[in-house]
Amino acid sequence: MAVTAVETSALLAAARRQPVPHTPVWFMRQAGRYLPEYRAVRERHTLLEICATPELAAEVTLQPVRRLGVDAAILFADILLPLVPMGLDLAFVNGEGPVIRNPVRGAADVAHLAPVDVRDALAPVLETVRRVRRQLDDDTPLIGFAGAPFTVACYAIEGGSSRHFVTAKRLMYEAPATWHELMRRLVTVLGDYLAAQVEAGAQALQLFDSWAGALSPDDYSRYVAPYSRQLFDRLRSLGVPLIHFGVETGSLLELMRDAGGDVIGVDWRIPLDAARARIGVHHAVQGNLDPVALFAPLAELRGKVRDVLRRAGDDAGHIFNLGHGVLPATPVDHVRAVVDLVHELTA
Amino acid sequence: MAVTAVETSALLAAARRQPVPHTPVWFMRQAGRYLPEYRAVRERHTLLEICATPELAAEVTLQPVRRLGVDAAILFADILLPLVPMGLDLAFVNGEGPVIRNPVRGAADVAHLAPVDVRDALAPVLETVRRVRRQLDDDTPLIGFAGAPFTVACYAIEGGSSRHFVTAKRLMYEAPATWHELMRRLVTVLGDYLAAQVEAGAQALQLFDSWAGALSPDDYSRYVAPYSRQLFDRLRSLGVPLIHFGVETGSLLELMRDAGGDVIGVDWRIPLDAARARIGVHHAVQGNLDPVALFAPLAELRGKVRDVLRRAGDDAGHIFNLGHGVLPATPVDHVRAVVDLVHELTA
Repeated sequence: MAVTAVETSALLAAARRQPVPHTPVWFMRQAGRYLPEYRAVRERHTLLEICATPELAAEVTLQPVRRLGVDAAILFADILLPLVPMGLDLAFVNGEGPVIRNPVRGAADVAHLAPVDVRDALAPVLETVRRVRRQLDDDTPLIGFAGAPFTVACYAIEGGSSRHFVTAKRLMYEAPATWHELMRRLVTVLGDYLAAQVEAGAQALQLFDSWAGALSPDDYSRYVAPYSRQLFDRLRSLGVPLIHFGVETGSLLELMRDAGGDVIGVDWRIPLDAARARIGVHHAVQGNLDPVALFAPLAELRGKVRDVLRRAGDDAGHIFNLGHGVLPATPVDHVRAVVDLVHELTA
Repeated sequence: MAVTAVETSALLAAARRQPVPHTPVWFMRQAGRYLPEYRAVRERHTLLEICATPELAAEVTLQPVRRLGVDAAILFADILLPLVPMGLDLAFVNGEGPVIRNPVRGAADVAHLAPVDVRDALAPVLETVRRVRRQLDDDTPLIGFAGAPFTVACYAIEGGSSRHFVTAKRLMYEAPATWHELMRRLVTVLGDYLAAQVEAGAQALQLFDSWAGALSPDDYSRYVAPYSRQLFDRLRSLGVPLIHFGVETGSLLELMRDAGGDVIGVDWRIPLDAARARIGVHHAVQGNLDPVALFAPLAELRGKVRDVLRRAGDDAGHIFNLGHGVLPATPVDHVRAVVDLVHELTA
């Protein structure tokens, strides 16, 4: 099954820098609030209910594939799910995003984190992967994903979203042994989780290090890169393309590339031609339209899409995406117009 | 008076890339909540009361100079003050930051913005400048400041802080004529305001384009740089050093340099040696310690300070600062330790 998909999927070919029928396009958070059919599901179910119910999670995973004609599905799940079987008490508070009621603040908290049997503890996610795969055609691969150890650690320590990451960075600076132990444990759980997703049918994996851009390059090298590298080293043997994504990574591109991944995600702050020059010819790139560009009038939006494609160049190895996730109020017809334009201009 | 200060101030010398007795150091938001003496004033007065009362504003401007031994004072004011005489209804809501109750959303709103006589409308700020100058010695210059047109425009349009700047970017894309007219008006008011600060005694000026890093380089070039350049072109004739500051500007450094300023502010995401190589030898740089590094144990903090100084190199033209403002819970003794260490290592 995987072999067929490799041969006919534009996304998998681009990730391997092979010739493509057209530039593949998908969107981070393509399953989300901007879609009326997603909002209809969310009216009846919480986010965690959807994640825990394979039928619902598969449905919302497939919604954007049907609606938009994108070249990949991405598993619907929350990046904090693996923290729950580790013993963290995760909830979503209306308007505030994720809240962890017992955040990790010291060595004892790390020591008490439970080992995780992902096949048992995250069974609904894996069942979602299997269900989605059965419903996708061979041209449309399913991307599995997890948060990168750093970004997941930040949530675990801060207890939710953060603006300055003071608590996480303090732990890093004040208790480096505790930090390193937490990262080691996350590498194990996240590696098991991603391997299980591939076993269940995921055909590519994206690691979201969404918050890596909060770090100086030196801190990234010391406290983060070794663990991202351990994780990528393990994932390489799974045989699927690996996408390494971050935001505000203008100074981290080379370090993230060296940590691992076949495809490096680039946000809109870095022109894609400059990013490709820095990342080099042995990696593909993914990006990099500003999510807010989707709100622009269609003529302006089309100009911005053309600019991304022009900067991506004629070489193989470009996956069109946003530089970050689709925002909740995004007009659906504009998202669809981008898919069509990318396909039309590159076919 | 200005002449004396030029000759003896480490900050003014560094800004002009002249030899310095030691690397000058000051901190963005050095007057702020982390200081107990500032909190004591704020217990009795709102932020806007302090700004409107020269005696109080001068006092909080001088507090960090006494406490820390920094090489410059920076005027205590809010970057949104110039919007008030333009007709915007500014308030500070507890825990939410600034709120503008009648934000600028269209051409009619821009047309209704009032012309501003800054000497009258912003008289308390200018009186604060005069008072502070009388109380500073010749080695310690006073830095005046304003928000850059883009960052002030974002506040005016969004009506407060924002995460994604959807409303501001939409106006930019959907109604470019309105955007350009708003920027033109801000250039006039902010130029008048900064010129009046110099007339009142400010010996250097910093333009805060704190949110420029939210833009793609292409959008920055089209919608922002021309107005920053107009403003800097006007300010150049004032004869004081000009500092151009932004955050998350990894891809914008050259564009910001070309827009104007003698000193380019650099945040902690960009190693200072890499930043200097890109900015070139005709500009000084300011930065670039991570504000969260001030929470680190002193040994770790000292290592990070040494790293900034090492990357700054032996050439003239470095002003030590953070990459962004001092955070509210920062330990005061750590801030003082950085001042002492910078002076000790570079004297």
